[in-house]
Amino acid sequence: MKNSIGREIPEVIEGYGKTIPFAGAFTIQPAMNRQAPKVKSMHPGRQKVVDTLESVFQQIPITDGMTLSFHHHFRNGDGVVNQVLATAAALGIKNLKVALSSVFPVHETLIAHMKNGVVTSLDTNYMSGPVAKAVANGVLAAPVVLRTHGGRARAIECGQLPIDVAFIAAPAADEYGNLNGVQGPAACGSLGYAFPDAEYADHVVAVTDYIVEYPLAPISIPQCRVDYVVKVDCAGDPKGIVSGTTKITKDPVGLKIAAMAAKVIEAAGLLKNGFSFQTGAGGVSLAVAHFVRQRMEQEQIVGSFALGGITGYMVEMLEKGFFKKLIDVQGFDLEAIRSIQTNPNHLEVSANFYASPFNAGCAVNKLDVVVLGATEIDVDFHVNVVTGSDGVIMGGSGGHADAAAGAKVTIVVANLLRGRLPIIVDQVLTATTPGETIDVFVTERGVAVNPQRPELLQQLVAAGLPVKEIQELKAMAEKIAGVPQKLKTSDRIVAVVEYRDGSVIDVVRQVNQ
Amino acid sequence: MKNSIGREIPEVIEGYGKTIPFAGAFTIQPAMNRQAPKVKSMHPGRQKVVDTLESVFQQIPITDGMTLSFHHHFRNGDGVVNQVLATAAALGIKNLKVALSSVFPVHETLIAHMKNGVVTSLDTNYMSGPVAKAVANGVLAAPVVLRTHGGRARAIECGQLPIDVAFIAAPAADEYGNLNGVQGPAACGSLGYAFPDAEYADHVVAVTDYIVEYPLAPISIPQCRVDYVVKVDCAGDPKGIVSGTTKITKDPVGLKIAAMAAKVIEAAGLLKNGFSFQTGAGGVSLAVAHFVRQRMEQEQIVGSFALGGITGYMVEMLEKGFFKKLIDVQGFDLEAIRSIQTNPNHLEVSANFYASPFNAGCAVNKLDVVVLGATEIDVDFHVNVVTGSDGVIMGGSGGHADAAAGAKVTIVVANLLRGRLPIIVDQVLTATTPGETIDVFVTERGVAVNPQRPELLQQLVAAGLPVKEIQELKAMAEKIAGVPQKLKTSDRIVAVVEYRDGSVIDVVRQVNQ
Repeated sequence: MKNSIGREIPEVIEGYGKTIPFAGAFTIQPAMNRQAPKVKSMHPGRQKVVDTLESVFQQIPITDGMTLSFHHHFRNGDGVVNQVLATAAALGIKNLKVALSSVFPVHETLIAHMKNGVVTSLDTNYMSGPVAKAVANGVLAAPVVLRTHGGRARAIECGQLPIDVAFIAAPAADEYGNLNGVQGPAACGSLGYAFPDAEYADHVVAVTDYIVEYPLAPISIPQCRVDYVVKVDCAGDPKGIVSGTTKITKDPVGLKIAAMAAKVIEAAGLLKNGFSFQTGAGGVSLAVAHFVRQRMEQEQIVGSFALGGITGYMVEMLEKGFFKKLIDVQGFDLEAIRSIQTNPNHLEVSANFYASPFNAGCAVNKLDVVVLGATEIDVDFHVNVVTGSDGVIMGGSGGHADAAAGAKVTIVVANLLRGRLPIIVDQVLTATTPGETIDVFVTERGVAVNPQRPELLQQLVAAGLPVKEIQELKAMAEKIAGVPQKLKTSDRIVAVVEYRDGSVIDVVRQVNQ
Repeated sequence: MKNSIGREIPEVIEGYGKTIPFAGAFTIQPAMNRQAPKVKSMHPGRQKVVDTLESVFQQIPITDGMTLSFHHHFRNGDGVVNQVLATAAALGIKNLKVALSSVFPVHETLIAHMKNGVVTSLDTNYMSGPVAKAVANGVLAAPVVLRTHGGRARAIECGQLPIDVAFIAAPAADEYGNLNGVQGPAACGSLGYAFPDAEYADHVVAVTDYIVEYPLAPISIPQCRVDYVVKVDCAGDPKGIVSGTTKITKDPVGLKIAAMAAKVIEAAGLLKNGFSFQTGAGGVSLAVAHFVRQRMEQEQIVGSFALGGITGYMVEMLEKGFFKKLIDVQGFDLEAIRSIQTNPNHLEVSANFYASPFNAGCAVNKLDVVVLGATEIDVDFHVNVVTGSDGVIMGGSGGHADAAAGAKVTIVVANLLRGRLPIIVDQVLTATTPGETIDVFVTERGVAVNPQRPELLQQLVAAGLPVKEIQELKAMAEKIAGVPQKLKTSDRIVAVVEYRDGSVIDVVRQVNQ
């Protein structure tokens, strides 16, 4: 069975189930009711604080085959996933599904749990490091489900990712389960990705190293959803929260691309008062923000909001008045954390609010422009951010496909060559974000516009931008680097890539070794 | 069929359905899943702003027999209920259920809609003024459902009060449906009672007279739950928000009662650091706060939090450091509104968070002391706050039964005579709050302790308080005012009084005229 972008998707995937083939970015409409967890009760005088994770496991009780969920706000400083899974292993529990919003190198211990059957299923939006490699190499019998950030929130709210127990790493908690991310030694800022878990899991366990007097203020996740509070020695290392790439690039090629992307934004007529913007934490993305800011300053433009994972650069733009608000689902650095602690115009929002396609309206819908990266892009503008050219999983959509679907103009920026290989291919190895949601591809050698956007093409040509056919850019790259050999993959599916609406946009097959 | 406090409750009540008899304050446990509204979707570019209420009625569409819900944060200044129901009437819609968290005199137009069949059912937590009188006189064929504030939140969350359309009077909104109560010309403070409606209604309509640039900050109710935004000329009159009774009483008898209640709190050993407190907005209740505050000042005690409907007096106690936090489900005056706008220690919470018995833990559970009023109390300590001695509905539980159930010590304060009638009776006309949740009754002639609390009795006696049997206080009152004649009621049930858990604690029968 082929989906609407021509990807071969089995009707049923073992360990995943029946597939819904991707049918277009806005084709599939929801036809279900929200997840309805069992109603709880809590008499006055009962306590929520539990001394150890073991004790929580026994009280719930956590048994073989359950789904445990976790958020990734501590990023590579996370201390909770490993502690919880070590507890599960020590108690002899098997066959767990781990629904962790993103997997980082710090989660390497997952591999051992996968090998010994403690964890047999993984559901995530992004994975990098040893676990990603192990998955690509087939450590799990069942395929990993790769979602978007909005898609995970949707799946939880729509009952497609039922969670038995949500473990919420909480930088600050009170003894009755009110939680926030902005206080305590491991403050991580927004807790946005944990909101759906807290709202819909059957059992909710806060794991914290910082318990304050009742009531906590501010409250991000409320007591009426949290069943247990466990104090651990260390919930996370704030140094690990900082992403590796939150500085503007110094690479001249990267700067050239960024400057061109900024010109695209201006030529598209979007750089005016009320402008709204999302960009990643990568060096080129931040450089785009930098050039946009220069033009905003020159033209005295005041933007409306910046969205997404928030970096110190966006905080500076807020504080200097370039944007009126920041909408923050995740902090990428310590400046983002400082700002959300104190600035009432820096808003913490849930993953649902940020990007779920199936609610009354998410924030990506309000974006003028998003600037995104790619590991590959093809001549139909489909983008791969899941696998590298070697076929190994090295990322994931995160908010990529969500923001691309929502923004008026979606710009992908990348060097024409990635390593020694052309970034433009006939067909991306793994389709993550459908071409219909990508408007412009900007490289150092020119700008390609999606043929579905002829009016935008005219605007960019009129502005004197070096507009080229994407085939032309592809030929340029191939002239330098040659035509790469097509990677051979086996039939075995190691990951199912879900589009934000829950349909299957692609699968990742194990690479032949 | 008699419930556990001896009230005669029909097994089935016409227009209400099968009853669950009240069985004790903590006996009934939930055995259901949460309400699961239909999942929505919203494509980028679609607008939510609608010009008129008529247009919203047509777009949804609103049809005969639907349930429309409203909150009461504008109190007697509400401008939304009347406009919406006038629209319904103009469109010829019949047979609506109105789920309005409290009914005030400003809602008098409801009577005409009840008479002409536009509204045939009412669900509320409190009613005063002409509508209450009309209901008591039988204007509706179906009995009104009277809930507690926590019980309404529970009923909505547990699927027992399904809402077709929630109309949310919003002091401030942006065009994508983010809402708060703290900005705009009709700022009302907390929007806590509207949170469950926004979360669980099938359709959510914000009605506002103040639309700001996207995104609104702060956000109390998020865009992902709001389908329509309607701009009206006037959503509410902030002058009407102020309750009639938010000043400390000057009546010497009231002051005597208040001083005694404060001594009860101290004698019970609760007046120490970390003290938490709820009191109403009535003159005597505020006087209790005043005397408590004096002792806190003398003893240098710092309390934890004050809870409930918040008054300027509580704001002053926060600002002067007597309490560290205010937990606010509803503002009672303009000082409460000012404070919640600016003070991060003044927390807006939902009705669920405040008082629902069926979640992972509500705020009333954390109360040390609540001070409450009564229209009647009986020798079993059951309290009536629904009907007057003439049998006419003149109030409702609001948070009365919720706070009584949650607090460590619940104190009812009242004059021994109400008008010319003894307040203590053999059996209250309408049981609102069960005696098992009332600990102490304080009058100007002495203090009665619930026999279920012998250790508290000893504490009060040891402190030299004028402790008396409740029968003794009753005899004193009857000596002055005589034994009141028992009111004759008809068989016709005009209201069903639900306890916070959804069981029926009593019914209100029409008074013989």
